[in-house]
Amino acid sequence: MSSWRFAKGHGTGNDFILLAGSEVGEVTEQQVRFLCDRRFGIGGDGILRAVRAGEMPEWQGDPGLWFMDYRNSDGSVAEMCGNGLRVFTRFLLAEGMATPTSRPGDSGWLDVATRAGLRRVWPLTEGQVRLDMGPVVVCGEPAVVETGQGSWRAWPVDVGNPHLVTFQDEPIAELDLSRAPTFDPGRHPRGSNVEFVNVVGDRHLRLRVFERGSGETHSCGTGVVATAAAQAARMGEPDGTWTVDVPGGRLHVEITAGQAFLTGPAVIVARGDVEVHDQL
Amino acid sequence: MSSWRFAKGHGTGNDFILLAGSEVGEVTEQQVRFLCDRRFGIGGDGILRAVRAGEMPEWQGDPGLWFMDYRNSDGSVAEMCGNGLRVFTRFLLAEGMATPTSRPGDSGWLDVATRAGLRRVWPLTEGQVRLDMGPVVVCGEPAVVETGQGSWRAWPVDVGNPHLVTFQDEPIAELDLSRAPTFDPGRHPRGSNVEFVNVVGDRHLRLRVFERGSGETHSCGTGVVATAAAQAARMGEPDGTWTVDVPGGRLHVEITAGQAFLTGPAVIVARGDVEVHDQL
Repeated sequence: MSSWRFAKGHGTGNDFILLAGSEVGEVTEQQVRFLCDRRFGIGGDGILRAVRAGEMPEWQGDPGLWFMDYRNSDGSVAEMCGNGLRVFTRFLLAEGMATPTSRPGDSGWLDVATRAGLRRVWPLTEGQVRLDMGPVVVCGEPAVVETGQGSWRAWPVDVGNPHLVTFQDEPIAELDLSRAPTFDPGRHPRGSNVEFVNVVGDRHLRLRVFERGSGETHSCGTGVVATAAAQAARMGEPDGTWTVDVPGGRLHVEITAGQAFLTGPAVIVARGDVEVHDQL
Repeated sequence: MSSWRFAKGHGTGNDFILLAGSEVGEVTEQQVRFLCDRRFGIGGDGILRAVRAGEMPEWQGDPGLWFMDYRNSDGSVAEMCGNGLRVFTRFLLAEGMATPTSRPGDSGWLDVATRAGLRRVWPLTEGQVRLDMGPVVVCGEPAVVETGQGSWRAWPVDVGNPHLVTFQDEPIAELDLSRAPTFDPGRHPRGSNVEFVNVVGDRHLRLRVFERGSGETHSCGTGVVATAAAQAARMGEPDGTWTVDVPGGRLHVEITAGQAFLTGPAVIVARGDVEVHDQL
């Protein structure tokens, strides 16, 4: 058993335990499970460990960058998470591990290495962080999504991971998302996240999301981007800015020439020391 | 917003946030909800605040004792919790807030003030804590408990709060406890916790518990005592020691002349500082 420094934070209710690799070294699958256990450990949707990119064999770029070693709560390796990357950015700044690069007229940015590649992030005021989410593509023919309550036309969107976005006439608050929505597995062999959307104003959307493998969540960064892109395609206005409300808070999406940027809050809630057990 | 020192700990998977009243002062219902929120705050089944008993208007005894101000995760006031009292004891010792009283031949004890009255606790080795759980009474005629899977004879037991203990022939692991068991509300107007028990060896029981108002939990200190008392009555051996396994770990119950003592583990997992928000 050993004592580790940790922080706990969240982005729109998607919560993480943050660790500095220089202090904790490698983290085993068992240790991730222990830390993320909400009763026997601290609790979180995953772990974000800050490591110098040069220490990660899978990273081929600048070895001096911070690498976001993101692990799911079950200990498995994960690629990228928009909510996690905002919280990770705040952690690097709060711990004095990084300073934004800036040029005159620019609020400053950091480049962060992730398993999905390099991501540029802009720390803003009032705890907001803006992220480059990469390309977003609304792809092909509408699909069909079904729940126990009905059947809807869905926009397939690719944000690095797959989404099916449905626009709803009835209030999404009344949907029962306790069971996974279904769709044609032949067309979506990797599975898909599914978004249920109400248009609540001019370029203002409200979203509930059912994540592949997780069920309904408070927030999903890529789902928010997919939702804005589907609405953009539907309205024939591909570039612009959208406000998207998720159960865990409010986010903003900008789309410019097929590239998406996501802005939202990130909070470091607690810092301390945890006695790490190798099993629950 | 202010920064508070906190600890997080658990007893057989029943977890709490621990605060020192001298550092945090009064705690509002909103602040309890924030701290216990598992995604926006830290997360816990409740808050245990250590306050000098003389500061609590409801306490009439020795004002110099530590009072366990126990609050449920929804902010409401709660009386007593066997798992919480073990964790509270470890917190007082770890923070140097109390030293056990001892006499030759005795391992030492503390007296703790609670809303259910004075409780004596004995910190033991290896993180175990023994508690005086007060009187336990197996009361009257058997009742009947029903679930969607069947109907069982139940022993009514009073440990300050009401219990209905059922002994099962089939493995309790296979029971579906996703819905509340039912019983005659005329006989149990305050409701009741319900225990589902397998006898797995000599004075060795295995328990799942459905708590009034909470659903199935990892552990319930009074339920463990009620279970041992019901088995004692059933076997016609009122005094003795029982080992009781709950989903969150192992506990031991001694019964002597109608008084129950509960021994089990308590762990302080983390310590740190939390930025307290007044709302989620």
